[in-house]
Amino acid sequence: MKFRVQRAALVEAVSQVSKAVSQKTTIPILTGIKVSAEDTGLTLTGMNSDLTIQVRIPHRVDDKEQVNVERIGNIVLPGRILGDIVRKLPGDEVEWTVDRLITTIRSGQAQFQLNGLDAEEYPRLPQLEEHQTFSMQADLLKSMIRQTGFAVSTQEARGVLTGVLCQLKQGRLIFVATDSHRLSRREAEVEADPELDLHNVVIPGKSLSELAKILADQDGWVDVVVADNQILVKADNLLFFSRLLEGNYPDTNRVIPQGGISEMVTSTREMLESVERASLISRDGRDNVIKWTVKAEGHVEVTSAAQDVGVATEEVPAKVSGEELTISFNARYMIEALRAVDSEEIRITFTGTMTPFVIQPADREDALHLIVPIRTR
Amino acid sequence: MKFRVQRAALVEAVSQVSKAVSQKTTIPILTGIKVSAEDTGLTLTGMNSDLTIQVRIPHRVDDKEQVNVERIGNIVLPGRILGDIVRKLPGDEVEWTVDRLITTIRSGQAQFQLNGLDAEEYPRLPQLEEHQTFSMQADLLKSMIRQTGFAVSTQEARGVLTGVLCQLKQGRLIFVATDSHRLSRREAEVEADPELDLHNVVIPGKSLSELAKILADQDGWVDVVVADNQILVKADNLLFFSRLLEGNYPDTNRVIPQGGISEMVTSTREMLESVERASLISRDGRDNVIKWTVKAEGHVEVTSAAQDVGVATEEVPAKVSGEELTISFNARYMIEALRAVDSEEIRITFTGTMTPFVIQPADREDALHLIVPIRTR
Repeated sequence: MKFRVQRAALVEAVSQVSKAVSQKTTIPILTGIKVSAEDTGLTLTGMNSDLTIQVRIPHRVDDKEQVNVERIGNIVLPGRILGDIVRKLPGDEVEWTVDRLITTIRSGQAQFQLNGLDAEEYPRLPQLEEHQTFSMQADLLKSMIRQTGFAVSTQEARGVLTGVLCQLKQGRLIFVATDSHRLSRREAEVEADPELDLHNVVIPGKSLSELAKILADQDGWVDVVVADNQILVKADNLLFFSRLLEGNYPDTNRVIPQGGISEMVTSTREMLESVERASLISRDGRDNVIKWTVKAEGHVEVTSAAQDVGVATEEVPAKVSGEELTISFNARYMIEALRAVDSEEIRITFTGTMTPFVIQPADREDALHLIVPIRTR
Repeated sequence: MKFRVQRAALVEAVSQVSKAVSQKTTIPILTGIKVSAEDTGLTLTGMNSDLTIQVRIPHRVDDKEQVNVERIGNIVLPGRILGDIVRKLPGDEVEWTVDRLITTIRSGQAQFQLNGLDAEEYPRLPQLEEHQTFSMQADLLKSMIRQTGFAVSTQEARGVLTGVLCQLKQGRLIFVATDSHRLSRREAEVEADPELDLHNVVIPGKSLSELAKILADQDGWVDVVVADNQILVKADNLLFFSRLLEGNYPDTNRVIPQGGISEMVTSTREMLESVERASLISRDGRDNVIKWTVKAEGHVEVTSAAQDVGVATEEVPAKVSGEELTISFNARYMIEALRAVDSEEIRITFTGTMTPFVIQPADREDALHLIVPIRTR
């Protein structure tokens, strides 16, 4: 096995597959990155019990040579050290030779000889049936992850609630996440066979947050393949596999209230900053409770109090219709929801002081965040 | 107590005194920041068992009003929360009122009421005899700290070795730090009474690193006052007190070799990067050992090896005179020393393969770093 590769391309590829490489694993070969050289380019693979990431460095990109393979072959090298080494290599080009399992990496005046592992022992990629597929813009997928992923439960014991529910019906994709105290939901049109119907595809929240990072620089389209217990996202020179969570996701439709007793429209940024300030007082308390008092004359009073510390109060202007009310909630849930809203204004619909309320971008219907209030004395 | 202050000035002052405020202390009032309003401006104070930092916000800076005091007074407020609050306040100006101990902080639409503590219970500033003083440029003091402070021992039990020895003789200031495996030393001329003679002033390394951060934006002169068990550094609107370490610092002069059996001159940056790369292989080993083989034909071979991982080798060009030799050392000591050198080239003087060697900027005599080699088989 012998090839030359542009260092920048190698650094990028190693950094991407490293997201699936763990130091803590009972299967030693999975602490490694598999590097395969074929005539058409290089393929790097990283894998853990949840994820498999494969990145290709093609022979040429836009007429510029990225990789030149002289002798094909495969090797597995320790992931962490490989990442650190390629980042620090002095030259623009890297020369890579494998003789039996000893891998020699040369760049500029630097030379490393690393003990590799036999690539034959590296697990195969998951094999997926590809008949359930849809396509969407990478940017849209990233938005949908960003606007729902934060609401998953972080407690492993909560099972399916640690994942994002992904449903597809008549070309409409829905992401839902909830930890049972709050819920986030986002819908969008995608390119799909209108017959394709997905009900209970639950993707681990952690997998999606890695996917969003890996797609950070991608624009263009991605293909999504859904199989029995795996999902595969295909982008330019990238394959991203995640296992799916087992179990039935609860029906959340009946949780989301229709209509309400009052409504307000206010600035997303002003409200976010105001809640962030109020939470400086409440954050050390168990539930990080802050209170809204919605006033018909056109503002919300945002208050928080902690016995030993003090009190925060401020008024945020709002267009209010319907009943005045006072409602208490966990400041962190509100902050995370408001940070996920891209619109300048939000509409908030209340159904009572003890029942869930809904936050939506004021100018669109395809996203919502629901928060369950906290009972206070 | 009542005043108005520019938010930016308040944020800066709170952030500086916070460096002396600890959450973990057996004296509750020391988790607070003392704020004093006088007609001439504000004074903020933070204190822990090692440090006291006092920052003034004067009434005016360059004809611009910074603070306007309506009613003088003193209060102590919890340090961490005060810092977070002032950073997040929405307005450019902050209005501050204290009624008994309740402190009301208003800015824009935001209002916080914090429970203060009685400033009478806050400890007094250390009182220092001011007859041992000298002056120097803030930039020079920062350089001297940066070029020696990393070499102090981080083990509390090592006593004086956790500090930097500061000596003054005939207007020449010397900083020395050692953890007994390596030593760093820097000298400079300062403004001082030539009669002033300081032998055994040992400043805790941690205090100096806080001082360097606090002086980051200062140019101009600082005055240094040395008393029995305290040092005071005075800069613009800043008083920085640190306790001194007790005990006699060892005599390090006899450790520093004079002359040697061989010498090399090489590029600081090339050698630093080369040692950083080699340490990627050795860093998980106990002593992070790397090896130099100095060759008369004009280069150094930098190598490292770890049984399970592999080998790194590279050559760095160097002007070599005297004997060829091979020497092993802890890569971290070398990396920290080379990062502290501001000159483009370094001169390294060897006295043998088992005896300390000396690294100096090639173009000056006022700084040196000594490293004790490691015996290898």
